[in-house]
Amino acid sequence: MTKRINMAVAIQGELGAFSYSAARKFVGNSARILSCETFKSVFEALESGDASAAVIPIENTLHGSVHENYDHLIDYGPRIAGETSLRICHNLIIFGQTKFSEVRYAYSHPVALNQCREFFRKNDRIQPISFYDTAGSVKMLREKRLDNSAAIASAAAAELYGGRILRRNIEDNRQNFTRFFLLTKQQRVLKDKRRPWKTSVAFSLANAPGALFKAMACFALRDLSLTKIESRPLRDRPWEYLFYLDLLGSPEDPKVESALSNLQEMTLFFKILGSYQPTP
Amino acid sequence: MTKRINMAVAIQGELGAFSYSAARKFVGNSARILSCETFKSVFEALESGDASAAVIPIENTLHGSVHENYDHLIDYGPRIAGETSLRICHNLIIFGQTKFSEVRYAYSHPVALNQCREFFRKNDRIQPISFYDTAGSVKMLREKRLDNSAAIASAAAAELYGGRILRRNIEDNRQNFTRFFLLTKQQRVLKDKRRPWKTSVAFSLANAPGALFKAMACFALRDLSLTKIESRPLRDRPWEYLFYLDLLGSPEDPKVESALSNLQEMTLFFKILGSYQPTP
Repeated sequence: MTKRINMAVAIQGELGAFSYSAARKFVGNSARILSCETFKSVFEALESGDASAAVIPIENTLHGSVHENYDHLIDYGPRIAGETSLRICHNLIIFGQTKFSEVRYAYSHPVALNQCREFFRKNDRIQPISFYDTAGSVKMLREKRLDNSAAIASAAAAELYGGRILRRNIEDNRQNFTRFFLLTKQQRVLKDKRRPWKTSVAFSLANAPGALFKAMACFALRDLSLTKIESRPLRDRPWEYLFYLDLLGSPEDPKVESALSNLQEMTLFFKILGSYQPTP
Repeated sequence: MTKRINMAVAIQGELGAFSYSAARKFVGNSARILSCETFKSVFEALESGDASAAVIPIENTLHGSVHENYDHLIDYGPRIAGETSLRICHNLIIFGQTKFSEVRYAYSHPVALNQCREFFRKNDRIQPISFYDTAGSVKMLREKRLDNSAAIASAAAAELYGGRILRRNIEDNRQNFTRFFLLTKQQRVLKDKRRPWKTSVAFSLANAPGALFKAMACFALRDLSLTKIESRPLRDRPWEYLFYLDLLGSPEDPKVESALSNLQEMTLFFKILGSYQPTP
């Protein structure tokens, strides 16, 4: 009973991480966010019922698809219930009265530090220091109040932990976006059929010339648009390929339904990961 | 003159990083390895002639394609001259006489630390400490000789810096492989035509239903096998998609040549990234 009232959304990482901002975008400010250590534990929390939804990153414009999460989508079998994208912005965050000219150390995850190289080049008195997590570095700074120190993380992390942003958007590349999925245990009922839908599937094909061409024909011959196709070699089965495919449409559309059942005939493995209406 | 004798191979990261092991696999032990801070500076070193070759990671079985390096391949335009894969193995490395039971701290890049969660769970007296680089943590430990401390990095890093491996293969997932490209400024002459060749291309298509299907037809109708296909939405041009495609064959094969020129007719952008013989 309490579960329905206190809806919990599982994410990987500390509160204030980018997955946290994506979760807020999906479910608003009322839901409780359950912070998990690993992606695997996010899927476990959803499966066990500790969380009624989960939010995971699935691809990034600089770093590509998160194959680990595709693996978990296939193994645990939750349904994708939503999709959104966030621009990855990094901010220099302090506690107390530290002035910008006094900052000597900046704590963050090395991937974030590496995305702010221009900032460190221009401000070479500031030394980057590796920390296990972006939002975690803000949380640590709030507790330890280290002298002359700042953290680099999202604006959401600054707000959540009560830090002050000294410099905004210090990342080198403004084209750094991450795409997130909202996951639920069961497929939600498809309500508003007029708004655009996307459907994600994973399937594998025997590695024969023209196999993918035939698979694509299921969609092309029905004038259905694909928004993603990606092959991934299967390590343990060198003659088989796994594919991720996103298409515009919901399986309740008869054209989509027949395209997918046509595709399924020619696959070794086939799984619908979910249908969802993207959140802009 | 000296350049030809002292062939330098540019990599991103410290000597002993995984790119270093891939470079040694490609060019042996005689070549000088030029350590660069960023992927961008690796491509710049190759372009300026500071390096005569470069080695970059292009995809990983858990983390997906390295889009940043695809961007650099397109912008700088070197040629792919080789391909190899390495299994990512992590090792606990010490200096001096520290016994395993005495280790309290393990330094490494957070991505590596995160890939050894099982090890930290079983040995919970050992605290993971974030460092900017895996091989860099071995180098640091050699210099500072911190008490009760170990680094987590490749066996190559242990060997290079004279560290001792206390525990081998402490990574959770044995299916963690990275694929690397060897790059040169010009396409090398295709010598041994009997050994299998691969060709990598990047192209973009207008986002119309069936566009990819027609592109695939260029290969399927000639019985050519693809080993990779991946779409990537272009942020600044929302109606255009960039594709990465690998196929079996060299452009000197007449079937490949006509398939590629056929494909080029229907693309908005088209670039051959290189032809190469994979190193097992």
